[in-house]
Order: sequence, then structure tokens, then C-alpha cells
Amino acid sequence: MNPLTAEESAAALAKLPGWTLRGDGKAIARQFAFPDFRAAFGFMAQVALLAEKQDHHPEWSNVYNKVDITLTTHDAGGLTQRDIRLAAAINKIA
Amino acid sequence: MNPLTAEESAAALAKLPGWTLRGDGKAIARQFAFPDFRAAFGFMAQVALLAEKQDHHPEWSNVYNKVDITLTTHDAGGLTQRDIRLAAAINKIA
Repeated sequence: MNPLTAEESAAALAKLPGWTLRGDGKAIARQFAFPDFRAAFGFMAQVALLAEKQDHHPEWSNVYNKVDITLTTHDAGGLTQRDIRLAAAINKIA
Repeated sequence: MNPLTAEESAAALAKLPGWTLRGDGKAIARQFAFPDFRAAFGFMAQVALLAEKQDHHPEWSNVYNKVDITLTTHDAGGLTQRDIRLAAAINKIA
């Protein structure tokens, strides 16, 4: 899978509310906030199931009610449609 | 709850294989590695249940098969017995 061009990345991001392109253009990131840890981890469990199903995994961190997710495709050395697809699916459950 | 003294921290860490004291002495950290994402997230789910039960939550991140956990007690401004207790429980399930 080839990395997206700058134009393709911009077009994809326009349809992904909340996600921003990392400075180097090789990843997208979004922070999600919830009422508490239980809600935050419940969200993470749903994302984990999505990730397994899509065989594409997030780089993510959690501190209490906040979850920070970064998506990139290491095999391709940048952002690909796999990241866009996972981000769109995550937005649906958030 | 008061922060542990340097002596108390050292004594507690001696009983917590794999955990190290952060440079400022206010937190402990450990990285856990698993065969794959599924195993890593299964571990995280168990830690999440522990954390809820103890009402004390980790700062943590995950990239595929690796989970990095940092424990500190923000309310106390440093390391306390709550961190030691959670670290010991995490070691039991790892």
C-alpha cells in the first residue's frame, strides 16, 4: 500500500472531524475525552476490536478520562488508506 | 496519603521486579511485551479492571504488542502506597 499524497491526505482529513495531520505528514492524531476512566476504557475496548478486525493497530495512550490516538502505517512509511479507514470507524463509535 | 520517602520507595521497588523509579522519584514505570496486540490488549483490560477496583489509574500507552505503564499519585504529588499496591497487582497478572 502506497502512502497518500499531500492532496489525498488533505481530502481525507476534510472528512474526518477532530483528526489532524502530524507535522511530518506521516500520521494523523486525535484526542478523545470522556466523563471518566470507565468510559475512556470502554471506548478503547471498542477501538481494540475494530483494530483487530481491520488488522491495523493504533499507537495510543490513556490518562484517566483522555485517550490520545495516533495512526500511521509503518509498512508504508506514512499515512495510507488503512489509517483513514480506521480513523473513520473510530469516529463512528466516539 | 503522603508520598513515600526515598528509603520507602527503594524498599518497595526491591519487591517489584521490572519496575523502575522515574528520574524525579515521583513515579514508577515498567514496559510489558506480549506476543501480539490481542495479548497486549487483553492484559490492558485486566489492568483496567484492577484500576477501577482500586480507584487508582495508570498513565499508559500501547503500540502493538508493547504496553508502557507509569504510576504516580497526582493528589499526593508523588509516589505513594497506592502506586505500589497497583504495581504489585499488575505484576501478578502479567
